[in-house]
Amino acid sequence: MNSQIEKIIKEAGLILEEGFNNFQIYKEKERQHLQSEYDVKVDNFLKDFFRINYPKDSIYSEETEEIKGHSNIRWIIDPIDGTTYFICGEPFFSISIAKELDGEIVEAHVYNPISKEYYYSDKITSKSYLNNIEISVSKTETIEESLLAFGFSANPKNIRKYLDKWEHLMTESKKAITWIGPALSICNVARGRVDAFIDFGCSFEGQAAASFILKNAGGYMTNYNNDKYDTTVIGGIFTNGLIKI
Amino acid sequence: MNSQIEKIIKEAGLILEEGFNNFQIYKEKERQHLQSEYDVKVDNFLKDFFRINYPKDSIYSEETEEIKGHSNIRWIIDPIDGTTYFICGEPFFSISIAKELDGEIVEAHVYNPISKEYYYSDKITSKSYLNNIEISVSKTETIEESLLAFGFSANPKNIRKYLDKWEHLMTESKKAITWIGPALSICNVARGRVDAFIDFGCSFEGQAAASFILKNAGGYMTNYNNDKYDTTVIGGIFTNGLIKI
Repeated sequence: MNSQIEKIIKEAGLILEEGFNNFQIYKEKERQHLQSEYDVKVDNFLKDFFRINYPKDSIYSEETEEIKGHSNIRWIIDPIDGTTYFICGEPFFSISIAKELDGEIVEAHVYNPISKEYYYSDKITSKSYLNNIEISVSKTETIEESLLAFGFSANPKNIRKYLDKWEHLMTESKKAITWIGPALSICNVARGRVDAFIDFGCSFEGQAAASFILKNAGGYMTNYNNDKYDTTVIGGIFTNGLIKI
Repeated sequence: MNSQIEKIIKEAGLILEEGFNNFQIYKEKERQHLQSEYDVKVDNFLKDFFRINYPKDSIYSEETEEIKGHSNIRWIIDPIDGTTYFICGEPFFSISIAKELDGEIVEAHVYNPISKEYYYSDKITSKSYLNNIEISVSKTETIEESLLAFGFSANPKNIRKYLDKWEHLMTESKKAITWIGPALSICNVARGRVDAFIDFGCSFEGQAAASFILKNAGGYMTNYNNDKYDTTVIGGIFTNGLIKI
């Protein structure tokens, strides 16, 4: 356990919790991509923390340019994964922090400040935890028995892309749902609540920590086109390792 | 305020909260319609409460046949609105209780036991509250500026129906998202987080309390086909009263 990072991600969570319960200013970063004032607040809060406490390390975050350090460690920060949910009043967003050593993720933290769900994994234990209890993926083996999550908001162009490629899964599965933020979506595969999450648009900083948590919970992932998984490639297919997508 | 119902809905919330954090048994009530053991548990808990404390009243709930009473009061219960979210690990589900007097809703309670958001409205005040603070709908006037929520999971047949009818709204709005449970979706219109919720499938017991909360927060609703609103008709369009759907 890295109790220092757990402490700071929960402190950042208090900022988000306060923001969720009050009116927010938000703007369009680009067309149909929202950013709230709290994305920036939490980003600044976490970057200040790492700059002061880990001055040699690099810091990568969604909101600003990468801060280059001199060590072989990089911190990957997503201040709010699921900003649209945050803005629209849905408590299904998270803060995500991953630690990279020589380009390889070795520690991961994902925290939902409303439900107080704290996911953690590290390379030393090679296990994953939710609120300090070990988690693992589901045992579902068939699509017919599976709960599948798809990463899309209601953008017709994206929806058509999903229908073209994955309609058979939506129809054959026990139930399919649509989600936005990859971090908690992937963590819910890791803890066995859904059997797979499929997203062609999830970003590096959104999936970095969660994909490591999934791996150490027994899951399996590929890039969206079924190539070998690379965290830096946008999009992915995240499963329990048993069902075939 | 009806503190007795507030107390019991929060007690039922504790049952749901415990269930959300532990493994659930669930089954298919019908194809792609999930039911968890907690739908039944909370339903029984609330029905027992009303049978003992309001023995003359009628009780309508999602899970069982209506209990007919001799008074002019009926309680409409939805033990979990958003069961699929509950099962899949997403803390966006609620308990919903509406009180009807001579066929007209006069009091409404919606509670999310994870975020502890408690929505309330009654006919005497004609106002709506979230955690005892008065709420009102947004002031957004145009589709271009609006956040729109659509009520669908990833069922291709339903998705196509939405694309046929509402693609222009998804494309023109600032952002569109997809939700399942009508109760919290409509309450988020009532508190101004989204500007409209459109759902052709939402049930009577899911929308009863929330539609009353929306009305008293300044919102407007029609049935899905833009007819006059009737709570008992499945589906609806719920807006801030300013944007035109």
